[in-house]
Amino acid sequence: MNNDNYYMEEAYKEALLAFDKGEVPVGAVIVDCLNGEIIARAHNSSQFGFDATAHAEVNAIRSACKKLEQSRLENCDLYVTLEPCPMCASAIALARIRRLYFGAYDVKGGGVEHNARIFEQASCNHKPEIYGGICENKCGQILKTFFSNCR
Amino acid sequence: MNNDNYYMEEAYKEALLAFDKGEVPVGAVIVDCLNGEIIARAHNSSQFGFDATAHAEVNAIRSACKKLEQSRLENCDLYVTLEPCPMCASAIALARIRRLYFGAYDVKGGGVEHNARIFEQASCNHKPEIYGGICENKCGQILKTFFSNCR
Repeated sequence: MNNDNYYMEEAYKEALLAFDKGEVPVGAVIVDCLNGEIIARAHNSSQFGFDATAHAEVNAIRSACKKLEQSRLENCDLYVTLEPCPMCASAIALARIRRLYFGAYDVKGGGVEHNARIFEQASCNHKPEIYGGICENKCGQILKTFFSNCR
Repeated sequence: MNNDNYYMEEAYKEALLAFDKGEVPVGAVIVDCLNGEIIARAHNSSQFGFDATAHAEVNAIRSACKKLEQSRLENCDLYVTLEPCPMCASAIALARIRRLYFGAYDVKGGGVEHNARIFEQASCNHKPEIYGGICENKCGQILKTFFSNCR
């Protein structure tokens, strides 16, 4: 397993935790690219955590910033199981994340490759390197199963 | 003073608190529109609070969600001294805020009337009523003073 798949598997474990709690199953990890250490692990907790902003990426960024006592994460990469929404893509830009790796593409709600395309906007002052479709099927399937169970 | 100006003055007081701390001076309040009560007051704390996501609007939404124990704020209005950035505009949509009142327009970084225009995107599933330019000069001047002092 290469490093990208390894870290995405770790993000996927977080998505599983969200699934078990009845939250939309999206997970994320943030990696210190200087030593390869995972410095934050998080999953979506918006519904039962009573926080509209508590997507996996925002939770992970908040956690990593607190850990490093920095408001920017310039030497960090973020792995998330779903293409970030516009809120999370903007948060990634604000945090100056070096590389963004995501799993499933999100045609309807995504804000990276679709819709607002946050990193292409003139207002965006940082664009990470972007790698989409890592472990795509697995990351997408858990979401399909979750929403299928909701019906 | 009408209600809109009153609540924006309360948001401005939060911007002053940010200014005194050396944070970019943006303030916000969230009002329960059923009884007019201010249920959250917050200011930008991203730099010294070590949190890239800690803009005034995100801080206020998080606080109001916790207070109401809800992930949505459908009966709430948000007042903020500056046009929200794309992250905050998306957070406002996710929280289902009823009305957004903002002070100064932000041609460079705004995501409501400029750039990503979050609420006009097909991916956006909630658009609040929007009122821009409330106490515009005052809300803009404190930012100009702050950035002028930084130089």
